[in-house]
Amino acid sequence: MQTIFYPNKENWHQILSRPVNNQEHLFDLVTPVINSVRINGDKAIKDFTKLFDKIDIDSFLVSQEEINSACLLVDSELKEAINRAMKNIRKFHQSQQHSVKIIETEPGVKCWQKSVPIEKTGLYIPGGSAPLFSTILMLAVPAEIAGCKEIYICTPPGINGQINPVILYTAHLTGVTKIFRVGGAQAIAAMAYGTESIPRVDKIFGPGNSYVTAAKQIVALNGVAIDMPAGPSEVAVLADDSANPAFVAADLLSQAEHGTDSQAILITDSMQLAKLVYEEVNKQLGLLPRNEIAHKAMQNSRIIVMRNIDEMIDLANSYAPEHLILEIKNDEIVAEKIINAGSVFLGHLTPESAGDYASGTNHTLPTYGYAKAYSGVNLDSFSKKITFQKISSRGLLNLGPVIEIMAEAELLTAHKNAVSIRLDELKKRK
Amino acid sequence: MQTIFYPNKENWHQILSRPVNNQEHLFDLVTPVINSVRINGDKAIKDFTKLFDKIDIDSFLVSQEEINSACLLVDSELKEAINRAMKNIRKFHQSQQHSVKIIETEPGVKCWQKSVPIEKTGLYIPGGSAPLFSTILMLAVPAEIAGCKEIYICTPPGINGQINPVILYTAHLTGVTKIFRVGGAQAIAAMAYGTESIPRVDKIFGPGNSYVTAAKQIVALNGVAIDMPAGPSEVAVLADDSANPAFVAADLLSQAEHGTDSQAILITDSMQLAKLVYEEVNKQLGLLPRNEIAHKAMQNSRIIVMRNIDEMIDLANSYAPEHLILEIKNDEIVAEKIINAGSVFLGHLTPESAGDYASGTNHTLPTYGYAKAYSGVNLDSFSKKITFQKISSRGLLNLGPVIEIMAEAELLTAHKNAVSIRLDELKKRK
Repeated sequence: MQTIFYPNKENWHQILSRPVNNQEHLFDLVTPVINSVRINGDKAIKDFTKLFDKIDIDSFLVSQEEINSACLLVDSELKEAINRAMKNIRKFHQSQQHSVKIIETEPGVKCWQKSVPIEKTGLYIPGGSAPLFSTILMLAVPAEIAGCKEIYICTPPGINGQINPVILYTAHLTGVTKIFRVGGAQAIAAMAYGTESIPRVDKIFGPGNSYVTAAKQIVALNGVAIDMPAGPSEVAVLADDSANPAFVAADLLSQAEHGTDSQAILITDSMQLAKLVYEEVNKQLGLLPRNEIAHKAMQNSRIIVMRNIDEMIDLANSYAPEHLILEIKNDEIVAEKIINAGSVFLGHLTPESAGDYASGTNHTLPTYGYAKAYSGVNLDSFSKKITFQKISSRGLLNLGPVIEIMAEAELLTAHKNAVSIRLDELKKRK
Repeated sequence: MQTIFYPNKENWHQILSRPVNNQEHLFDLVTPVINSVRINGDKAIKDFTKLFDKIDIDSFLVSQEEINSACLLVDSELKEAINRAMKNIRKFHQSQQHSVKIIETEPGVKCWQKSVPIEKTGLYIPGGSAPLFSTILMLAVPAEIAGCKEIYICTPPGINGQINPVILYTAHLTGVTKIFRVGGAQAIAAMAYGTESIPRVDKIFGPGNSYVTAAKQIVALNGVAIDMPAGPSEVAVLADDSANPAFVAADLLSQAEHGTDSQAILITDSMQLAKLVYEEVNKQLGLLPRNEIAHKAMQNSRIIVMRNIDEMIDLANSYAPEHLILEIKNDEIVAEKIINAGSVFLGHLTPESAGDYASGTNHTLPTYGYAKAYSGVNLDSFSKKITFQKISSRGLLNLGPVIEIMAEAELLTAHKNAVSIRLDELKKRK
């Protein structure tokens, strides 16, 4: 973990650089998989599952019996925790609903905007060593609140083709329509184009390895929507001399354990804190079971010492981190000045883990600087906004001439005609 | 214009097919342009402008003098119309603002979501035969309401390198920061990566030809956001025997004049109306100055006769049109059943042109079936939603154990530690 002191603004871009992945190379690798699934459907998925997951799968659909017996296997304390998190996530995402307001922009011209659920959504839930059931909560709960009719999950088959029981329990709890044991780029292609057994969806959500991410970006060029471009996870901590070095170190490391390409950045104006956090990181790192991953991730990570809180805020906004923790005095005032971040955690008692699991906010957030323009997943991610308008005869008599003048100036005669022909009729009726 | 009677559901996909464009070929053509601008900056733009626009440009930035004198050239009746449209667009988009609500998901756990403007936005305004100043209203007005700090326009230089005065007037009126005379894929690359004279932006908006669209899709893979994938414009009209065939024909043709790849679909349950609209289209088509374009577009267009209103609605939802006009009885009841469309126009006196120009709704809308998952441009398009949370000691004592259990089940020990280390400290303090 490198420490950088008082960097000049022209060097910010470089010291805030993120680990690079070779995207084009990934596109080249993933494109044939996608094309093959698009053409050969289930047969291609079966072949790729054998190739990549080393297993022969006959039925991708997880049966109701498998789900039922999985639900019995989950520890009741964990079930309770999941239920509690779900309640909070539901409460927060429900608060994002808005009622329809009819706006009369001119007398007789009524316009309104309505959120309408996306009909078919597909959630990708990664497999691997840990069952990421929390991501199901973060995606299926708002999908259900939004009113999505069909919610599908694809997740890679484990040993013997089985899916971790906690994944099945959480999917069942959140009302997921169907679960398929398919992973990787082949799962993304299946949801994007549909196969004999896996339905085509309108939008694909969820994290994944770099192949899955590349596959999502490719299918997004071809008719299906995706939640957002995803990169490695990252955190920035703003801390001053009021911070507890052990808390800060724990927060940096909780990011670092995600993967070797994760990044954790401490921004501080306290030389003393920088030193203490550095020592704490090394101390806590040794105690972590996943310390090899975290150790590598810490090599991408930095402690940056700035002159004052304003510089610290500027630097954080330039970085546009996925997660931003404010372990500082006046955290609420500083939060008002944050303009680029996925999710912000205020104060010394609000670790990122809270939002990762249970406080109610979503943990699917923009990485890689995308927080400058993208929102994290929220209720709106599962619906689209349709506008409506209705014009009365009075409204058209009023506004019609304005439309005619503008259409004519854009040389769009037929656009003008569509108004003129109606105005003529209205004048005739008089 | 082909007429199709009572198609079976299995044929819907085919009869609702859209004109295809060869995307991969476009990507191959546009990629070198983008790479060249990324590497060579202004010099590359100058070269491409000479090559594609046949003109030598020394200063891409449009000067204040040029803007001032353009404002004097615009007809006052047109200015008044633009001002009136702007007022309506502002009113409707202002109504899309929401106040921040702090949600206490559990005692001591406060979460909120805040819309924060995207700092730097770039608007692409096409050139060509007609000055599409209305698109500036549709993009710059919500950008300004959202609070975007910098709003740039790129638009291709006309003959002598000049920009149409109405474009400059509208840009000036809406408070655009700077205007650059650059068009095509080179303009998109300039806004995505920045050059010596054109600033890098966070999100690019606006329509364009197929090269511009392809360029937007490519840069979207590389760090910049775009409004939405864009295809040729399209309309579906639902009409029954209450409809005026001349109005319906005018609406279909106003779509068709956009370009040869535009598409207009009439869906009706009245054989009589189908016949009358067909005749009216041919009659009105002959009178249009742009009738060559419209004539070609009508070849992509269809009249589809269905059995009843429910089938008509189903078909429209399957098509997911950019624009949907409901020239039917009970239009308000039917509007409630529309689940896939960009913008919906209710009744016999609400032509699409109203929303294209002046009623207040946005005209930048999802095409090509993307309306199933994408919203049209709206106030949210110019901001991102950041979530915030703050947990008190009471909150962490309550929720902490839930987070610990979940993190442990996902094998994320450091995530758990970030909570445990704080709980230990809180217990010590007691």
